Amino acid sequence: SVNGDRLWDSLMEMAKIGPGVAGGNNRQTLTDADAEGRALFQKWCEDAGCTMGLDTMGNMFAMREGSDPDALPVYMGSHLDTQPTGGKYDGVLGVLGALEVIRTLNDLNIKTKHPIVVTNWTNEEGTRFAPAMLSSGVFAGVHTQDWAYAREDAEGKSFGAELERIGWKGDEEVGARKMHAMFELHIEQGPILEAEGKDIGVVTHGQGLSWTQVTVTGKDAHTGSTPMPMRKNAGLGMARILEKVDEIAWSHKPHAVGAAGHIDVYPNSRNVIPGKVVFTVDFRSPELAVIEDMEARLKVEAQAICDEMGLEVAFEKVGGFDPVAFDEGCVGAVRAAAERLGYSHLDIISGAGHDACWINQVAPTAMIMCPCVDGLSHNEAEEISKEWAKAGADVLCHAVVETAGI
Amino acid sequence: SVNGDRLWDSLMEMAKIGPGVAGGNNRQTLTDADAEGRALFQKWCEDAGCTMGLDTMGNMFAMREGSDPDALPVYMGSHLDTQPTGGKYDGVLGVLGALEVIRTLNDLNIKTKHPIVVTNWTNEEGTRFAPAMLSSGVFAGVHTQDWAYAREDAEGKSFGAELERIGWKGDEEVGARKMHAMFELHIEQGPILEAEGKDIGVVTHGQGLSWTQVTVTGKDAHTGSTPMPMRKNAGLGMARILEKVDEIAWSHKPHAVGAAGHIDVYPNSRNVIPGKVVFTVDFRSPELAVIEDMEARLKVEAQAICDEMGLEVAFEKVGGFDPVAFDEGCVGAVRAAAERLGYSHLDIISGAGHDACWINQVAPTAMIMCPCVDGLSHNEAEEISKEWAKAGADVLCHAVVETAGI
Ligand SMILES: NC(=O)NCCC(=O)O
Ligand SMILES: NC(=O)NCCC(=O)O
Repeated sequence: SVNGDRLWDSLMEMAKIGPGVAGGNNRQTLTDADAEGRALFQKWCEDAGCTMGLDTMGNMFAMREGSDPDALPVYMGSHLDTQPTGGKYDGVLGVLGALEVIRTLNDLNIKTKHPIVVTNWTNEEGTRFAPAMLSSGVFAGVHTQDWAYAREDAEGKSFGAELERIGWKGDEEVGARKMHAMFELHIEQGPILEAEGKDIGVVTHGQGLSWTQVTVTGKDAHTGSTPMPMRKNAGLGMARILEKVDEIAWSHKPHAVGAAGHIDVYPNSRNVIPGKVVFTVDFRSPELAVIEDMEARLKVEAQAICDEMGLEVAFEKVGGFDPVAFDEGCVGAVRAAAERLGYSHLDIISGAGHDACWINQVAPTAMIMCPCVDGLSHNEAEEISKEWAKAGADVLCHAVVETAGI
Repeated sequence: SVNGDRLWDSLMEMAKIGPGVAGGNNRQTLTDADAEGRALFQKWCEDAGCTMGLDTMGNMFAMREGSDPDALPVYMGSHLDTQPTGGKYDGVLGVLGALEVIRTLNDLNIKTKHPIVVTNWTNEEGTRFAPAMLSSGVFAGVHTQDWAYAREDAEGKSFGAELERIGWKGDEEVGARKMHAMFELHIEQGPILEAEGKDIGVVTHGQGLSWTQVTVTGKDAHTGSTPMPMRKNAGLGMARILEKVDEIAWSHKPHAVGAAGHIDVYPNSRNVIPGKVVFTVDFRSPELAVIEDMEARLKVEAQAICDEMGLEVAFEKVGGFDPVAFDEGCVGAVRAAAERLGYSHLDIISGAGHDACWINQVAPTAMIMCPCVDGLSHNEAEEISKEWAKAGADVLCHAVVETAGI
């Protein structure tokens, strides 16, 4: 059994870095706060006797030796970056829960056969640099490193330049490591476990995602002196498309979701009819065919709206991944661990994307989820209990030790 | 007759300061570019033998002496600040057209009875600091100076601090000057004069404006793992309200207009359902009752939409002015000048707000408009012809000299 108090203290300590404005965190990827969080994590890992590896995408790998020099390591981890108004647990629980596993094995003097590695993946959130799960994606060969380096934030700063600037670009070739297995502990970010009163979610699948960036172009013009029939209002076009996004997602009820979280209006002046709006539509479903249908309908509907209004519209896919089925062996190890420890559990589908979704393409992978209050996440008020955190780390510990052997 | 080439050269010279990205200008109020534009204008005024006055709101007053020491000055002018993606003529024509009147009187050695003053009003556009026509409003006693100083831009910088920073805060008490009359030359910013093939718009009225800032509050939450029925999507609420804004404006066809040019989404992250959206609705009509009706209906409709969606909504009036009827004497002087000079003319209603609308409350005031291509304004592609500019300045010259006496 892991030390729940020690895990909680570490979570609270990390949350001091990059504080938000309402009790949560703003520790966005490749900011100074991210660098500070990384340094604290590295110190903790070294204190726990691990050696730190760092690859050219800034992914961190803290290794605890195993007894068999030829055995591939078992990986566990998640991400330390947060949303601009994010919570204290999304990602962080998976990294510090994994560190707690190492600390517990040290306490109990347990030597595993396979080495064990705790990972912090760079830019999981995808807010500052789209897409999400960028560096686990490069690790898994989904994106090239050059393409990833060229991603730009809203100010035009590139991922590559910012990684150099914060001093966390390593020498190790990304993706060169081979894995025996990988486990990721994460908060659910949805309401099911809490509603069902379960301690542990055994994640069998992850739903797929599509991010379509939509650019609607009209004509900047005066809001006062331009007669209504002469207007090409890109803001109104955007509004009509957002209504369709909602309709399309509901039409696949209960399993599809859709919304736009990112909307930029140009020139964004009170007395200028918007000449351009750029926004990103996020569609998700556990079924690939549903995602493809939603993407296709968005394009047809948006084109029809814009044609009718004399607007131009363009679409760019800026992120996405297919639905995932996790490795049956690893999923079984998670379920067995929960069972053995006496935690109530439920098979669930992840609503969010995770680094584990990409790593599953190159190694046997599974995820463990713990409940979060009201299913709330990507919000500074995101909350979990110490007991939920401990249960998740306990199951992680048992599944990993089972897989790594003693 | 004024010198059309000289006027055009000055317009092109001023347009070099604060260039835009597409051939227009970004010389927003109280920026370094604004300061540079002011310095050039001051130099030109001094070269033309004027003395410069500067009040505590940064309003500039370049005076040419009259022959009667007791006579109140006749004012003319407009503004040198622009939209973020603005044109080269909106406001600037009115200031440099007035300067051209002075230069012409110098050329012809004409001494008027009343002094003549060319004015540059600070922050007419209202983009960086709402509301529009801020400093002419303080001059006319519509706003207090303290309130104006406290207006903040999107970065939280105050009008007062920025006015100090650029070094254009004067000592003269704002509004202390008394005026015999005031004339403002401006581009139409609408399509009527060009469509009707008229050289000059004799502005009899100005339509009124209402700016309502709407804040819709939902709940930041994950776009992937938050089920559709649990969402409080402030972005979708905004979209539905924008559709109503359009409906409300059309319902008063042909004379009302409505749109939102300013929309800020929080936290503006691709995978966060917007927890808050702040946007400004711009409604206009020449009839006060219509404006009041639109404002009231916006509140009712937005409240109903938000109640239905579980969202909060709040309204703040951040700008506005009632419809204006300009002074009959001054309007008559404009019409007579156009007639005398042989320019075709049409009585029109201004669709936009202008400094003249506020000054009309404290002095007899009128406006002269010249056509602009396609009625396009608040767009870098805003265009006028040299002939149109000259005709406008000619009429300004004759109306002012007529009013100032010889
Ligand atoms: N877990 C998580 O919030 N990941 C970010 C990627 C996504 O939007 O699903
Ligand atoms: N003329 C002009 O564009 N003024 C800005 C104020 C308004 O929006 O009408």
